[in-house]
Amino acid sequence: MYDHRKIGRELGLFDSDPLIGAGLPYWLPAGAAVRRALESYISEVERRAGYQQVYSPVLGKRELYEISGHWAKYHDDMYPPMDIGEEQLVLRPSICPHHALMFRSRSHSYRELPLRFSELGGQYRAELSGAIAGLTRVRAMQLNDAHIFCRLDQVAGEAESALALINQAYADLQISPSRYVLALPDESLNSPQSNYVGDAESWAHAVEILREVLKNAGIDYEDAPGDAAFYGPKIDIQMMDSAGREFSLSTVQIDFHQPERFGLEYIGADGNKHRPVMVHRAIVGSIERAVAQLIEVHGGAFPAWLAPVQLVVLPISDDEEKVAAEVSRRALDRGLRVEIAHADEGSLGARIRENRWAPYQAVIGAREAAAGELAIRERDGNRHDPAPIGAVLDEIAERCVPGALRRRSELSSPAAVRSGA
Amino acid sequence: MYDHRKIGRELGLFDSDPLIGAGLPYWLPAGAAVRRALESYISEVERRAGYQQVYSPVLGKRELYEISGHWAKYHDDMYPPMDIGEEQLVLRPSICPHHALMFRSRSHSYRELPLRFSELGGQYRAELSGAIAGLTRVRAMQLNDAHIFCRLDQVAGEAESALALINQAYADLQISPSRYVLALPDESLNSPQSNYVGDAESWAHAVEILREVLKNAGIDYEDAPGDAAFYGPKIDIQMMDSAGREFSLSTVQIDFHQPERFGLEYIGADGNKHRPVMVHRAIVGSIERAVAQLIEVHGGAFPAWLAPVQLVVLPISDDEEKVAAEVSRRALDRGLRVEIAHADEGSLGARIRENRWAPYQAVIGAREAAAGELAIRERDGNRHDPAPIGAVLDEIAERCVPGALRRRSELSSPAAVRSGA
Repeated sequence: MYDHRKIGRELGLFDSDPLIGAGLPYWLPAGAAVRRALESYISEVERRAGYQQVYSPVLGKRELYEISGHWAKYHDDMYPPMDIGEEQLVLRPSICPHHALMFRSRSHSYRELPLRFSELGGQYRAELSGAIAGLTRVRAMQLNDAHIFCRLDQVAGEAESALALINQAYADLQISPSRYVLALPDESLNSPQSNYVGDAESWAHAVEILREVLKNAGIDYEDAPGDAAFYGPKIDIQMMDSAGREFSLSTVQIDFHQPERFGLEYIGADGNKHRPVMVHRAIVGSIERAVAQLIEVHGGAFPAWLAPVQLVVLPISDDEEKVAAEVSRRALDRGLRVEIAHADEGSLGARIRENRWAPYQAVIGAREAAAGELAIRERDGNRHDPAPIGAVLDEIAERCVPGALRRRSELSSPAAVRSGA
Repeated sequence: MYDHRKIGRELGLFDSDPLIGAGLPYWLPAGAAVRRALESYISEVERRAGYQQVYSPVLGKRELYEISGHWAKYHDDMYPPMDIGEEQLVLRPSICPHHALMFRSRSHSYRELPLRFSELGGQYRAELSGAIAGLTRVRAMQLNDAHIFCRLDQVAGEAESALALINQAYADLQISPSRYVLALPDESLNSPQSNYVGDAESWAHAVEILREVLKNAGIDYEDAPGDAAFYGPKIDIQMMDSAGREFSLSTVQIDFHQPERFGLEYIGADGNKHRPVMVHRAIVGSIERAVAQLIEVHGGAFPAWLAPVQLVVLPISDDEEKVAAEVSRRALDRGLRVEIAHADEGSLGARIRENRWAPYQAVIGAREAAAGELAIRERDGNRHDPAPIGAVLDEIAERCVPGALRRRSELSSPAAVRSGA
């Protein structure tokens, strides 16, 4: 594996500055392109899976986290409250209380359930200076979070679907988990000094549901007593970093507690009020950690749909610059991330080497320019025969669509989507 | 015009909660869909115009804003600093200092200029409780910001291109400015107690450039002495809200000051170091204000590409539910925001009325279901003849692409992109 901090610096993906602050990295254009591709992917697979996207502010009143229980449990990891007017605002340690309030802002019928709120939003943690590292331990992160409000009998189905989304994402990102963990409460659950909220019976039920989900999905897992959230058990999906340390990337959690604390309700088929369950789930958890893992696994050779630059156009001499510009424009129109390595930037060999991380290169000589054709060279050395520009760009654009977004029932040309990219 | 707060509540676009805090609205699914469409639009037109997207954290050290000059000028409007470890962090009042640091983090050749960093990112202002209103005066906003680092002789061209992007966006959003303003310094510019930074000569030069840009674009404008930024003059584009108040939505600004303060440099063709100019520009300024304006102009009848729900499928009876689900799935595959108004939710007439804000409705009866056809009814009452499902969905998907993203030189079917939507 690669060290994401080293590669990040070498490829200009991200960096930090003492004037901004420790643990607050910024994303340079190449890294931002990877992040944006990942965020668009998540947002589109969620949309197709029936999630409703929302946006909520990164601030909340201290009182909000007192109600949710975060203040009592996580106070030390939170940013200090700020006095604004008569309010005490705090950078949020978690997105769930915002979504609970948004659910509560409208009345809901059982017909609307499961109601799935998803958000790509900021979350903040006052990590100690010593703990801060690259993109993996930061003081501000972008979370891919969702909360599903549903009936108890819908929880298993929702948890199963969430696991399926997660596993599909791993296939598209070409990364693999080190193991699946069922995070359980420790023995204090039944004691009066319990670290957990809620009654033992609800906990047992939630654990049983998650075991069933893992079993049905045919997933091997290990129990991890003491690793549960304070409000419920969870499935954590672990990855290994380049230093051999394990961390959680994805999660599916069952929560009876916050619906209780926030008094959430829906009107059942019987006309009475009922309490929904909240399923928390993250496909790739924090975007920072996910991109760190992508870098550690792939080095600079990202899957084509994630590559900062997908196609590099290389005119052999100044004579082909005009055609190169035209190819670039047409590629841009197809949504591709394209760059021209101009003839005056060095020898062809040097330019090919310099752009070796791009999944596709198109060298344009006098012959290609005259024929209106492109000959593609893939990152792995594979070369394609020259073909008309439009058709080649269409094929590359298709290959730069991630798997989950490719499966259209009505594809006009199945040949164009073979697995190449 | 409509009151965006009233429509926002009625259509469930956005709302707020005392537990989150005043001036911190959240976006419900329908409003979030509009916001997301707008953000994707901006990001794609910027990409095609040669901007490089970046992400930077919403926090910075107090010292950063002391250097930039914001601390001295805007201190009262800023959130209070927070002590984290040994650092004093503050929620940023502006994105430009982050971009200046990012430019400075790498060495740059004149060949790379103009270098255009764009970002959709958070910005914070401690507005007084009394000033807070709906989406127009908030304490946390999402800014559509960009900073172009360029040579002095490139400034006019960049400002002209930025104006063109802004005007194209207005056409796509179907909104119109009330007037264009050239914001100038007041008479204190030459006094020792000046509110402005930089020398009078640079100011005069910058003003001259902006006048020339406005003239070349054939735009009528008014001078506004005293309205300049502390670092330079600007073109502000004003809109009128439903209460008849004017506000700035878009801006193009010239800044010699921050490149100086941050010691920005590039290597010129002569091999020597030179100082770039920064052009600040926002296509629609804050996303909150832009969406407020869209609501006030369009009420619930957003242009099709922005509509929360673009297509509503209405099966006449339970017998057509299966076909409706299939149509919905195929529409989703084409990137459309689609909903089914199910047969058991009320009479057909009631369901049509309830979904009157959707630009396209498709009623499916026994005949359409049997023939595999759709008959579209537009929001304005216009009805189309029944046609095969796939072709109809393709046409709607084309109409839901905003104008700026439509102009492909190689469109297979020009008829599919006639101006309808």
